[in-house]
Amino acid sequence: METMNRPALVRTRYAETDQMGFIYHSHYFAYFEVGRGGLARESGMAYAGFEREGVMMPLTGCSAQFVRAAKYDDLLAISTRAASYSAIRIRFEYEVWRIADRAARLLATGHTDHLFTDLSGKPARLNRRPALWEMTQKIGAYDTFPDLVARGLVDAPS
Amino acid sequence: METMNRPALVRTRYAETDQMGFIYHSHYFAYFEVGRGGLARESGMAYAGFEREGVMMPLTGCSAQFVRAAKYDDLLAISTRAASYSAIRIRFEYEVWRIADRAARLLATGHTDHLFTDLSGKPARLNRRPALWEMTQKIGAYDTFPDLVARGLVDAPS
Amino acid sequence: METMNRPALVRTRYAETDQMGFIYHSHYFAYFEVGRGGLARESGMAYAGFEREGVMMPLTGCSAQFVRAAKYDDLLAISTRAASYSAIRIRFEYEVWRIADRAARLLATGHTDHLFTDLSGKPARLNRRPALWEMTQKIGAYDTFPDLVARGLVDAPS
Amino acid sequence: METMNRPALVRTRYAETDQMGFIYHSHYFAYFEVGRGGLARESGMAYAGFEREGVMMPLTGCSAQFVRAAKYDDLLAISTRAASYSAIRIRFEYEVWRIADRAARLLATGHTDHLFTDLSGKPARLNRRPALWEMTQKIGAYDTFPDLVARGLVDAPS
Repeated sequence: METMNRPALVRTRYAETDQMGFIYHSHYFAYFEVGRGGLARESGMAYAGFEREGVMMPLTGCSAQFVRAAKYDDLLAISTRAASYSAIRIRFEYEVWRIADRAARLLATGHTDHLFTDLSGKPARLNRRPALWEMTQKIGAYDTFPDLVARGLVDAPS
Repeated sequence: METMNRPALVRTRYAETDQMGFIYHSHYFAYFEVGRGGLARESGMAYAGFEREGVMMPLTGCSAQFVRAAKYDDLLAISTRAASYSAIRIRFEYEVWRIADRAARLLATGHTDHLFTDLSGKPARLNRRPALWEMTQKIGAYDTFPDLVARGLVDAPS
Repeated sequence: METMNRPALVRTRYAETDQMGFIYHSHYFAYFEVGRGGLARESGMAYAGFEREGVMMPLTGCSAQFVRAAKYDDLLAISTRAASYSAIRIRFEYEVWRIADRAARLLATGHTDHLFTDLSGKPARLNRRPALWEMTQKIGAYDTFPDLVARGLVDAPS
Repeated sequence: METMNRPALVRTRYAETDQMGFIYHSHYFAYFEVGRGGLARESGMAYAGFEREGVMMPLTGCSAQFVRAAKYDDLLAISTRAASYSAIRIRFEYEVWRIADRAARLLATGHTDHLFTDLSGKPARLNRRPALWEMTQKIGAYDTFPDLVARGLVDAPS
């Protein structure tokens, strides 16, 4: 189960900065997607596999709150969890942490809401798709700190 | 005052599509920015002018809700208004409409929250900056329908 | 024919700036695409129509040369022409001009090379697709200056 | 020296796909930038450090040739080298490889040309900046295959 708590790592790109010298806010939604894709991969089924099985997950809503700005070349850890889900929809929640000097600082939080649909855009009842349903049920909480310590990215609290 | 209600027009780009065939959600935040920039320009002071005056408007939060998906080459109207503001922060709200066949259909709504800061990132009290303060006070509600009719983009309701 | 010479207009976005304060270079390729899409629309068949007819135009190469940097909120005119083509490939060439103070200054030039393929990615012989072939043959040179003058965006040379 | 040959790894994002189902071409220029940033980091001085020292590297030109298309969730290795340089300019060359099934396939090649300038945009003679000059001189050829083998990402040729 501990692999569920493995955050995706992202290094910010120059392409993602803006003239304020910060990462432009819309890119956090791409970072969230990296976290979501990593969560899918950790749980044994890459997101690309969903689409090959004929399931898409279009967004119906999203939000982000920004605590501190990210800058170019920052190393970010994206913690992701499935906050709630049913047979037809799922909500993911995210935390974006900057890893520097063996410590993690919270930069942003956010969420995305998704429908499960078939390739034509009609709702797909996920509980009739056992592999994806099982994956969804496996996804737990995101106390990612132990994993960051285990990977040597941050120090354990003393 | 009616110029306050002039929505910005955006044509979606192929670069903004994703493999579902829809516009990827993060680009709506760039469309919101186009709406915000248009609102600033309509009110007599381009956003670029704020920065030249030493005022930045970093985001502290944002959200979007998606009603219908946009596709490549859609013509979108971005309605923007200042929903609330004080001397140190401002909230913008947005509606994204698709213009086609002389009618408008709502695709998405959203908001962004901004701080006013100086170039070093410290809060800037806007009421001590008359030009920007005046602009902020001018920004009203966004019944943009009359403008879309006036520009011949949609038909008036019969 | 003069509509062939109508450049697409793009206003640069804050999202497209980088921390040098310039438009990040990769966005010029999206601007080129706007020019390409505008050219297709001017010639009577939107690019989206090609894909509905089962023709895709994947890139095989591209380049850009930068003369002057674009900045936030610049108004750009994208001049596009089909420099050469055959039944299986096409090359577009581009010029990006900044429109300001009723004059145009060259910012960048570039090209893109495309294959014509069917939806499975196999080469599609365009001369067997009359509508697209006719459109391709119509596309001429890009002396766009008269159009910019006619639209009142720049002054005619004295 | 062998660290010079360590390619940057990038996993493609859903945000980077287009409705053809491929990675949109402009993102390769962001991947090239990731390779460039990795090269700078390997050589002992992060690119962010250049700007802190007052040196920027605006692009004057770039190109890419596409051999095979990348798709969502591909793992890419970006090989980067300084192909030529002088005190005032530098050319980087890139190869983008897809890593899958313990083998690497070439997807794209490209180049970027840069000027060295100070923060006001004026040319900066790099040979008067010892740290950056030394870094530039250290950057060698990019036979990255041994590194990919060493990291267990691809098999050694038999």
